[in-house]
Amino acid sequence: MEKTQIGLLGFGTVGQGVLQILQSREDLHIAKVLVRHLENYQGVKAPLTDNADEILSDPDIDVVVEVMGGLHPAFDFITRALEQRKSVVTANKAVVARYGPELLALAREVRQSFLFEASVGGGIPVLDALANHLSTVPIHSVEGVVNGTTNFILDQMDQGMSFAQALERAQRLGFAEQDPSADIDGWDSARKLTILTGLAFHSWVAAEDGVVEGISRVDASHIHRMREMGLGLRLVARAERHPDSIGFVVAPAAYPLSHRYLALHGSQNAIGFLSEAGATWLEGPGAGGVATATSIVSDIQRIRRSVPDREPITLLPSFVDSVDDTYVVFMHDPERPLPEVPHILRSGPGFMVVPHKLAELEGMVQYRYRAK
Amino acid sequence: MEKTQIGLLGFGTVGQGVLQILQSREDLHIAKVLVRHLENYQGVKAPLTDNADEILSDPDIDVVVEVMGGLHPAFDFITRALEQRKSVVTANKAVVARYGPELLALAREVRQSFLFEASVGGGIPVLDALANHLSTVPIHSVEGVVNGTTNFILDQMDQGMSFAQALERAQRLGFAEQDPSADIDGWDSARKLTILTGLAFHSWVAAEDGVVEGISRVDASHIHRMREMGLGLRLVARAERHPDSIGFVVAPAAYPLSHRYLALHGSQNAIGFLSEAGATWLEGPGAGGVATATSIVSDIQRIRRSVPDREPITLLPSFVDSVDDTYVVFMHDPERPLPEVPHILRSGPGFMVVPHKLAELEGMVQYRYRAK
Repeated sequence: MEKTQIGLLGFGTVGQGVLQILQSREDLHIAKVLVRHLENYQGVKAPLTDNADEILSDPDIDVVVEVMGGLHPAFDFITRALEQRKSVVTANKAVVARYGPELLALAREVRQSFLFEASVGGGIPVLDALANHLSTVPIHSVEGVVNGTTNFILDQMDQGMSFAQALERAQRLGFAEQDPSADIDGWDSARKLTILTGLAFHSWVAAEDGVVEGISRVDASHIHRMREMGLGLRLVARAERHPDSIGFVVAPAAYPLSHRYLALHGSQNAIGFLSEAGATWLEGPGAGGVATATSIVSDIQRIRRSVPDREPITLLPSFVDSVDDTYVVFMHDPERPLPEVPHILRSGPGFMVVPHKLAELEGMVQYRYRAK
Repeated sequence: MEKTQIGLLGFGTVGQGVLQILQSREDLHIAKVLVRHLENYQGVKAPLTDNADEILSDPDIDVVVEVMGGLHPAFDFITRALEQRKSVVTANKAVVARYGPELLALAREVRQSFLFEASVGGGIPVLDALANHLSTVPIHSVEGVVNGTTNFILDQMDQGMSFAQALERAQRLGFAEQDPSADIDGWDSARKLTILTGLAFHSWVAAEDGVVEGISRVDASHIHRMREMGLGLRLVARAERHPDSIGFVVAPAAYPLSHRYLALHGSQNAIGFLSEAGATWLEGPGAGGVATATSIVSDIQRIRRSVPDREPITLLPSFVDSVDDTYVVFMHDPERPLPEVPHILRSGPGFMVVPHKLAELEGMVQYRYRAK
């Protein structure tokens, strides 16, 4: 049996997880691993190199796995690998969200596979389920909790910490980056939603064309007041299809404590799809070296077992116009009485849930859908 | 673009759902549909036949879809289709649970695909996730609620009906068959668990080699007493890997009311996998014409887009020896005091949860794991 030869770009937690899983495989072999500084890996048993050309120009390498992260040089390496007629597997949500359509087009042109299961939901096989199963009938909406750092911070605030304390703790424990903005400002979730939207609706909506609100304006007192009403908060990403548009929003959203989102802690993610066939949910580890590596290995397997798709995913950009949903409004000063507005669906001390059609309100933090 | 030509064996709810989805497809075409009595389908716009040979012997048909149900002649038709070098997609859990290994071996021999996503979890892409994603690392256990009829009956009993009343209502509404034994005695769940076990552990455990308990001995009073303790009941199928054996059990099991299983109603199913990568759950419609048809269509797509697998699923039967788990014990007479036994983990009026190692107890209904 001929082995599939793999070149690994990057050797962090996920790259090492891939190596670990493949050590027991007869069919898949890691031929080379790109690292930035060879001297940091003395004693490591792996075919290391610090020269990307040794992977990208090696005719014996069939599949390039990119787990470096960041837009550049990751995007450039992926492009070169495809041009060299290698299939590519990546876990890089930034690259896929930004360059997905053109990389998919390039892959189609060179008749190679470009797969990115690990870029959304870590170890949950959500993209394959979406692209190959659930979208056999039209999908109405996709939503999920796709960021573990915000789960952790919101849970800490629920235990009594301030936002700043919770963030500091997450950083100290390695659950948040030193620059935490991608997680707490919602951009990490937004990139994942862009990818989900691309596969669900064949439209690659940029986060900048939707609404992206993070959790940094959430105060511990908001969470306590909501809990008294039997509600909890999660950072939710949601896109929905409308006749001529797609709604796209990432925002903190309130749910009854019995909701599946409030049972998610740490890196556990949940992603749901609503279609004519019903509501389908996938839950599992959204991060972690081994978990994320399982998605990468399954992509490699799929490449090994398949001919390049005869019908690649079609991407027809078409953008947001109108959306329908409710949103949660918090008052900056929870002691102030709520303003008089029509159509309050639910309210409590310092917050209320209202239809999205209401205009801006003075002195309030609003988490909502916005028409583009 | 050449169309994939499909022969449909059976034209019930699921078969009609497949036809409905494929009507808008350019790439997949239903060439012929086998029905038993042509006269029952007057006015139906479909290429009907009552002669299976017109499908099985037609060299233009690429894929045979079997949605007749029952062991025979379904098994025989599937075998003939494979021998005629057609790929086969089936929703038939009875055939797959009983003849899965030999049909997979035959498919491998003739280098055709044999796929059965719809046989477990209806519209939930659980088998593809399991075989191609989640099993990249060893799976420790698989469990789920995979039967909607029992969800419905248990919910009706929770509302105050007796078992007999609830069953009668389910039958009247079409949620249970006139012969309801496959659902209520646990055999439907057991067949699905056999398939899950086959893919998760590469062992095709027959239901007869495990423990299969249905819900017919559950009384409304059991459910009421459990609810007072914050517990609810679902028919759960569970298999787990042990060093030299596989535990296999279908039984009513008690959970806190906040558990995901108690949020499942009607045909909604949930299936979970525990592996080194974490716990992954899939939830969605476990039955219904359109939902089940989406799984069939995704299987057909997979065949259209792939060469036959170079590494088909390996099936190495190896059987049950020991299992570790707790089980729930109900007393036939809830008014009688509980017997004195060691290691009661939790108890209430008329029931208790005990480790599996306890021996048989007089006067009690026991739902438990049994060492083979």
